[in-house]
Amino acid sequence: MPVTADRLLACEDEVARLAAAVPPLSRGAAAAARRELDRKTKPRGSLGRLEELAIQVAAVCGNASPRPLRPCVVVVAADHGVADEGVSAYPPEVTRQMVATFVGGGAAICVLARHAGARLVLVDAGVRAPVADPAVRDFRLGPGTANAARGPAMARATALDALLAAARLAAELAAGGTRVVCLGEMGIGNTTAAAAIAAALLGLDAHAACGPGTGLDEAGLRRKRAVVARMLEVNRPDAADAVDVLRAVGGFEIAVLAGLVLGAARERMLVLLDGFITGAAALIAVRLAPRAAGFLVASHRSAEPAHGAVLDALGLPPLLDLGLRLGEGSGAALALPLVSAAVGVLEEMATFADAGVSDSGR
Amino acid sequence: MPVTADRLLACEDEVARLAAAVPPLSRGAAAAARRELDRKTKPRGSLGRLEELAIQVAAVCGNASPRPLRPCVVVVAADHGVADEGVSAYPPEVTRQMVATFVGGGAAICVLARHAGARLVLVDAGVRAPVADPAVRDFRLGPGTANAARGPAMARATALDALLAAARLAAELAAGGTRVVCLGEMGIGNTTAAAAIAAALLGLDAHAACGPGTGLDEAGLRRKRAVVARMLEVNRPDAADAVDVLRAVGGFEIAVLAGLVLGAARERMLVLLDGFITGAAALIAVRLAPRAAGFLVASHRSAEPAHGAVLDALGLPPLLDLGLRLGEGSGAALALPLVSAAVGVLEEMATFADAGVSDSGR
Repeated sequence: MPVTADRLLACEDEVARLAAAVPPLSRGAAAAARRELDRKTKPRGSLGRLEELAIQVAAVCGNASPRPLRPCVVVVAADHGVADEGVSAYPPEVTRQMVATFVGGGAAICVLARHAGARLVLVDAGVRAPVADPAVRDFRLGPGTANAARGPAMARATALDALLAAARLAAELAAGGTRVVCLGEMGIGNTTAAAAIAAALLGLDAHAACGPGTGLDEAGLRRKRAVVARMLEVNRPDAADAVDVLRAVGGFEIAVLAGLVLGAARERMLVLLDGFITGAAALIAVRLAPRAAGFLVASHRSAEPAHGAVLDALGLPPLLDLGLRLGEGSGAALALPLVSAAVGVLEEMATFADAGVSDSGR
Repeated sequence: MPVTADRLLACEDEVARLAAAVPPLSRGAAAAARRELDRKTKPRGSLGRLEELAIQVAAVCGNASPRPLRPCVVVVAADHGVADEGVSAYPPEVTRQMVATFVGGGAAICVLARHAGARLVLVDAGVRAPVADPAVRDFRLGPGTANAARGPAMARATALDALLAAARLAAELAAGGTRVVCLGEMGIGNTTAAAAIAAALLGLDAHAACGPGTGLDEAGLRRKRAVVARMLEVNRPDAADAVDVLRAVGGFEIAVLAGLVLGAARERMLVLLDGFITGAAALIAVRLAPRAAGFLVASHRSAEPAHGAVLDALGLPPLLDLGLRLGEGSGAALALPLVSAAVGVLEEMATFADAGVSDSGR
């Protein structure tokens, strides 16, 4: 699709406005939540990170009584041209098959979202052969990215379009009352794209940025490292321009996820990241809008070795450390009950005054 | 209460039979669960510790389809004579006040048990002044232990009685269909008792065994360390005899919790430990019945410094690490959704064959 210079400029402006519209966290709501927690029948701070989480949700939502949370898990799927280089343990058809499994309700994320009481929203950002089902939102940017080992993964206009479409989805979820968005992804080859993004934005070399993904062997991992090095060499992404990094080595689902982070932050929703791929998408979003970092929670530290560097760069300590390496949003859905419980403590617990309990232990 | 030598011997025998009745884990159910997990639409092992947890539940219950789990949180409360030594940031009346708050539904554990879908069972093992309410089970062994800085905390017969009464409660819960028991406690002064138990059983010195509990300052912590040293010196517990350790420096709630571990294991229920106090109780139980260790899950690593040594001795890596230091079973209730989700994955996910997904990634 050729894009006129005017339209490209209009998109650049709109993305800049989106990034600028990310609000600061509400200090007032955070302070109100902290005061409220300190009145509860428990020693101050004795619920540790759970209390910090409750305060963050209040600061994000701008409200010390943020319920109902109406959580969603948004799983964005797309294919990757770079999968042709043999960088995954699974063939590209699996992306489409797994989207069909998401629709059918039998995938891990379906079970975990159900257990966490979250609605599952499925987005096709560019699976090779689409799953035609009304349960899948059509955000298709093409039948998978181009092979980024041979040239840019996508046009700059496509990356911008993805960010903007995702921000509109975030606004729609917010309008429906959602206060917490869990991010998930599916895309054979996408740890390769995420590794290239992390390498470009964090200055890692390809060796440090790559891990086994969902199950590469040693030879596969060597190949993946060489492919990531080639992606960076061929495309020379501009680390100072996160959209250029998306264009050069990104993925359609990663672009949509980055837009969801920006849109969710603009709408004062909490974003629960999953693993390495959603972390790379968040890194893009935070480079575009640094304030977005305050709206993020790292649900877990994944088994992918470079995930730690991504979380460090985002300044996010993970809630869980369970050796997960599935993706789909599984870690985010597993951490969601902690967020619900944190807000439950804030809103449901009795205070010392309510309960007539001695509060001499300060 | 004077106890005849005959009755004491009968109790000793019954506790020995209880310990001997702890079954081995079911290897068959564990293998069946592992096979089932490997057929699910996900790369093998990609859900990390969640898969290990599902396999453990199967091995514990002796069944690869262990649902419904009907989880309970059992909170056992008691007072401690040693609280007279000024070892807590809170006055002893708070034990009773908190039990009343548990009954009222406004305490942290009430909120967290509700969020996790668990029934709350309240047990009075010896609060100074009882809360007369039908919601509180009467397991009273006295109006709090004796001050263990001046002599034994309780009679040996009392410790044995507590173990046996608790095992009967576990049997009752199992008969009601409960498959997962979360342990919690309330008792001003009980981190001091737990520290003395950990010191006695693990050979720690009082300095290493003591932490700030729910909020001691530096002077309080120094006092607590001196008190724990005195408890050990005055009572000289026999580290080779866990019941003697209970008698010398334990607590009524700790004795009941140890009995719950033994009873739950005998009934093939999973036990989710909370923090330092339930960990000390589990240590007693595992010294009496080493096989009980396989029935335990460490829900979290608490802020109490010696908790790590207790978990290491039990061989249990914690699921969460959130800096909790509340007790009440709060960490166990927070980890319970992970157990439910693990079993959900085992029982609800589609297999590769169901879903028609390529499984070439092995």
